This record gives sequence, C-alpha cells and structure tokens, in this order.
Amino acid sequence: MSKVFVEISMSLDGFIAGPNAAPQNPLGDGGSRLHQWMYDVESWRERQSLAGGQVNQDDEVVKESFARTGAYVMGSRMFGEGEVAWPDPPPFRAPVFVLTHHAREPWVRQGGTTFTFVTEGMESALKQARTAAGDKDVRIARGANTVRQFIKAGLIDELEIHLAPVVLGDGVRLFEHTDPEHVELESTRVIDSPKITHLRFRVVKED
Amino acid sequence: MSKVFVEISMSLDGFIAGPNAAPQNPLGDGGSRLHQWMYDVESWRERQSLAGGQVNQDDEVVKESFARTGAYVMGSRMFGEGEVAWPDPPPFRAPVFVLTHHAREPWVRQGGTTFTFVTEGMESALKQARTAAGDKDVRIARGANTVRQFIKAGLIDELEIHLAPVVLGDGVRLFEHTDPEHVELESTRVIDSPKITHLRFRVVKED
Repeated sequence: MSKVFVEISMSLDGFIAGPNAAPQNPLGDGGSRLHQWMYDVESWRERQSLAGGQVNQDDEVVKESFARTGAYVMGSRMFGEGEVAWPDPPPFRAPVFVLTHHAREPWVRQGGTTFTFVTEGMESALKQARTAAGDKDVRIARGANTVRQFIKAGLIDELEIHLAPVVLGDGVRLFEHTDPEHVELESTRVIDSPKITHLRFRVVKED
Repeated sequence: MSKVFVEISMSLDGFIAGPNAAPQNPLGDGGSRLHQWMYDVESWRERQSLAGGQVNQDDEVVKESFARTGAYVMGSRMFGEGEVAWPDPPPFRAPVFVLTHHAREPWVRQGGTTFTFVTEGMESALKQARTAAGDKDVRIARGANTVRQFIKAGLIDELEIHLAPVVLGDGVRLFEHTDPEHVELESTRVIDSPKITHLRFRVVKED
C-alpha cells in the first residue's frame, strides 16, 4: 500500500534550518551544510536542470526517493520561497498540494508538476495527494510546522532523516516539544556514507 | 596516541535525559528508554555484577568501550547520583576523576575503581586522567554540562552517540546552543542494530 513519508536533512543537534531563517535566507545561517550531500549528486542536479554531479550511494538514495514519490504535500511558506526560486520544470515532476489559507487556481508547470492549493486543511490535502499518487507514495515536504502537524496527527507511516555530521547551535528544530505518545519509531534502514547518514524509521501505530 | 572521547545515548530529538530529571529520577521521565539497548547486553550486566544478557553487536560495542577506557572524568552530579547506586565493585574498574568544588580524600573501591576528587578544574582533571590512562583512552562521562564544557574547550577527540529511535519531547539536551565553531565533525563509523544506531565522529581540529 502507498505510504505517507517525511524525508528531511537534520543536524546532529536536531535542526532542519539554521538561525535567522527568512524569505531571503530560507535555510538559515549554515543551513545549506545540511543539504550539501544532496546538492552534489547527479539525480538532484538533473531535477534542477543542472549537468554533472556525483553518482554514489547518496545519489541512489535521492533517485529512489524521487521514484517512489507520486505526490507531495507542502506548507505555504515552502511554496512561497520556491515559487520564485524553482526552475521550470520544477524538481517535483508530480502533483504538489499546497496547504494555504488563500484559494488560488492550480498552477501548471512543465514536466508534470501542478501546484494545487488546498484551503480545507491537511486531511483534505493528504486525501487528494493519495488519490493523485496512486500506487506510489506521498511525501510530506517542508516546512517544519507542516511536518510536525502531520506527525502529531498520526498521519506519517515513515520518517527518513538524513543526519548530517554538523552542529548548527540554533535554528528550526524538526522536533519541538513533540509529545512522545505521538511518535513510536522502529529503525528499518541505515545507510551511511562519508557525508551523511540516512536513517529510516517506521512509525509504529496502534490499530 | 591516547584519545579523549565522549560516549552517550541520545534520543532522536536530541535528549540525553527526559523531563523531570532529579536525584531520585536521574535519567528523567522515559530516559531509561535511551539505555535499554545497553541494559540488555552481557558485558554491561557483568559490570553491574548481574548474570546473563545478550551477546550481540551492541554487546561488542560496550565491550570495546570498556576495553579502551583507561580513566574517566565525570561531573559531581553524576558522581552524587552514582555514589549511592553503584555496586561495589563499581562498573568502571579504572581511575575516575570527579570534577567538584568540595575537596575530599580519594575513595578506593574494589575492582580497580578509585574516585579522585579534583577541585582545580577540568584541565587538571583531564591531565590526571591522561596520566592514569597511559596508552588507553579517557572517557568523559556525564553529565551534560561536563560534556558540553569539554566540547566547548576543544578537548574532545571523538564523539560516539548511541542514537535511540525514541522521541522524549523534553529534558536535558546534549547540544544546547552549542557554538558551531566549537564542533566540526567527521563521521568515522556507523553500526546499526535493531535497537540503536551507534554513530562515531572524529572532532576535526585546526592545528
């Protein structure tokens, strides 16, 4: 069955963005250090219409992630930052459902990416994303608030953290006063490479 | 050359003890979940004078850690908690240097553990521990403040984090506003087992 997953790069001290994050500095000070492993690989660069890049274990992880994802859900802040920054075609190449308070017509881009704006909340966005994804998986993209809300609501099946050997000291945490009752995890896969450690967890659910 | 290392269990959200930590509840609420992997293995149990236990990859990690450690440095709070709780012989079986403001005669226990109380600060404690350890390594034990001070002072060569697939939500963080300039890390070893992921980092130093 299709899964709902979160996949995000995190520092060893728990941050997914550095301090002073702002529209002109979306990853915060030092935040790009969390993503360098990804910027370097071929499959990520190809999605940005950039040539070259490394073909290694990290590249495999990115390739696999793109291949499994049939639809995305993201917060309005991530969309706002990306709207002016993503190339056309954007890197998603799949339907993207944006959680927002502002109704807007769908925005169709090249390469299979259509942004659909959902004002009825996360359950509605997820339902639409599931339908759009078919047999593939649904990825809950940034920002941190969106991810936390989905975790809290028990809607996540799998969590993949790319743990960077980096300390940021301050910034935006992935987990911020997360109620332990909302997250019981089981480690299902660890891939380590020189730049990053990919940690995959199944979210254990009672049912 | 002999190394100075920190080795500690941490939750995925960065805590080394849960909320409400107190002398009667030293690991805080839920904190023992971080250490369960260790409580289960033979080599840890043997050091507590307990029979049985699992012989697995985690046991190897604990065994290796005990074998490499020639001396310990610990904070006064950890000592205070342990003084009434450790068996005799205590689990260290090596010289332990306790950072404290209260001078006290060395406390000799069975099995090779002598607690020496150091009132001249961490550099002095480390120097004494290095001498005592000889060719073996020096482990900086808890608490969090002690570990953070050693990291901040650039005195740590290696950091080993046993990352538990657990979210505690609140408690005592290993990294609390750590200045990124004090910690540049390089991943040197990852061992994953079903209960815990052992992450080893070299602390990169300029010199």
